[in-house]
Amino acid sequence: MTDLGKRILIALGGNAIKQAHEKGTYEEQLRNVEKTAAQLAKLVQRGYHLAITHGNGPQVGALLIQQEEGQRLGIPPQPMDVCGAMTQGQIGYMLQQALMNEFRKIGLDKLAATVVTRVLVRKDDPDFQDPSKPVGPFYDEETAKKLAEERGWVIKKVKPNADKPYRRVVPSPDPIRPLEADAIKKLYDSGIIVIASGGGGIPVIEEDGKIKGVEAVIDKDLAGERMAEVLGVDIFMILTDVEKVKLNYGKPDEREIDRMTVSEAKKYYEEGHFLPGSMGPKVKACIRFVEEAGGKAAIITHLEKALDALEGKTGTWIVPD
Amino acid sequence: MTDLGKRILIALGGNAIKQAHEKGTYEEQLRNVEKTAAQLAKLVQRGYHLAITHGNGPQVGALLIQQEEGQRLGIPPQPMDVCGAMTQGQIGYMLQQALMNEFRKIGLDKLAATVVTRVLVRKDDPDFQDPSKPVGPFYDEETAKKLAEERGWVIKKVKPNADKPYRRVVPSPDPIRPLEADAIKKLYDSGIIVIASGGGGIPVIEEDGKIKGVEAVIDKDLAGERMAEVLGVDIFMILTDVEKVKLNYGKPDEREIDRMTVSEAKKYYEEGHFLPGSMGPKVKACIRFVEEAGGKAAIITHLEKALDALEGKTGTWIVPD
Repeated sequence: MTDLGKRILIALGGNAIKQAHEKGTYEEQLRNVEKTAAQLAKLVQRGYHLAITHGNGPQVGALLIQQEEGQRLGIPPQPMDVCGAMTQGQIGYMLQQALMNEFRKIGLDKLAATVVTRVLVRKDDPDFQDPSKPVGPFYDEETAKKLAEERGWVIKKVKPNADKPYRRVVPSPDPIRPLEADAIKKLYDSGIIVIASGGGGIPVIEEDGKIKGVEAVIDKDLAGERMAEVLGVDIFMILTDVEKVKLNYGKPDEREIDRMTVSEAKKYYEEGHFLPGSMGPKVKACIRFVEEAGGKAAIITHLEKALDALEGKTGTWIVPD
Repeated sequence: MTDLGKRILIALGGNAIKQAHEKGTYEEQLRNVEKTAAQLAKLVQRGYHLAITHGNGPQVGALLIQQEEGQRLGIPPQPMDVCGAMTQGQIGYMLQQALMNEFRKIGLDKLAATVVTRVLVRKDDPDFQDPSKPVGPFYDEETAKKLAEERGWVIKKVKPNADKPYRRVVPSPDPIRPLEADAIKKLYDSGIIVIASGGGGIPVIEEDGKIKGVEAVIDKDLAGERMAEVLGVDIFMILTDVEKVKLNYGKPDEREIDRMTVSEAKKYYEEGHFLPGSMGPKVKACIRFVEEAGGKAAIITHLEKALDALEGKTGTWIVPD
């Protein structure tokens, strides 16, 4: 059994796998994943026992475009839940391989393995009534109308003055729990570094006594928090592209937060300090972890500052009151 | 601990997921996977503890075409090892979901989970010198030459009189072992039905002290046998689209085999009774399981005859001398 103060769930942001300016070639993604693995291996070396989740935005975006284009040669497109499952295989493979190569390099005898993970959401989640998460390619008006009609997609104008201003939007329902929780926990508790719930998990609902995939995207930090609950880790750590969370973001009185109690975090959240598509769900996930799951602390910091943050030198800490 | 006589590794053939005449839509594949799950659940109901592996030919073929087509919109194609990893996510998700729905329907409290699996092959496997496994789209001569030059692919004429007679060929190296063996075994030994080594596993080699993906395809039955070895199952069962293996296949004196000792199987194999791209690797995998891994029996039969075969009513059994 690993030291209980050292059980950590890491939620990796998009920059851990693909940088915003990159095209997303294999070579680029491999380089990023190897850098990420080097950072994570440092934590393992210090005795932290990691569980890992990750985003999949750029990868599932690419797959969705490929699904459309493949139809020209008669290849039927797979739905979003299946594409999400594919990215779990893709990114899980790259991460587990890069991690184990790094472990070997620094003389650590540790395993990493990926579990394909479904995440249950409520069939009546309000987000199904008002989808707002843009996914996949951009379309011109004619194509947008055709797709909306043929496939029943909800399509919105997201870039008003562009040539192709339309894009499909899907719901982003709130995660309830990973359905492969027992498998994930078994591996983690046995000392294996488990990679799971990738891309927020494959979204599924319960309907007529069956579990079914749905075309939606679950926020990966909120889903990661549910995985952290299931594993009973001590620390939930979100690694992203900023070192600290900010108050009054983008305003003259902007300032970094070193530490906030869960009550302070809730107050700031309600005051609108954190952007909905960006820091908002991250802080929300941290609040949940500390308040509902009884976690010791949640930390948000830059990927390259992970170890420094764990040692209390940086990052934004969210702690119990 | 499950009854030792009831530990079985099942290798599912392509027909378990996609029928040859189908286009491969999600609905078709879901229907097939649900039928497959109903067959497998019957075994679980009788107390057999299953580990499962599966093919991915049609799925990875579709993905490879989509990778090419996506380039028209600037999406970089991912290499074959990554595409293989994607199909493990895709098919693993569909299988674990269909199995758990079926278990619930018949009142079984059982879990199924998928582990993303790399399979080690030798860097100097002779097949790397003479690749022969066709994959992905067909090309005309001009495109074939361009791709061979630009990407270093080996391209062969596989359909002499067709408009697009060329196709990429890749090596099909012999599997050594699944690298996620410990994780797979931990789950299986704890009573979870583990799905792993999909599509023959993601092929990787060791080079300069690192594990690296390679563009190749490992035979899924030979890789499944390596997984069976690692798990120490009693029975290795290949489910395909014929009920029994045949001697003198396609000849007037063709006859079905009910049972052969491993020595008989080796003799028939060497005499050329089993086709290389078809029954050959299946029989070879069974021989290995009984001879090298000390398995109690290997069975080849039709997907729908799995339970009958286990009860000794049908199928071709390969047993120790």
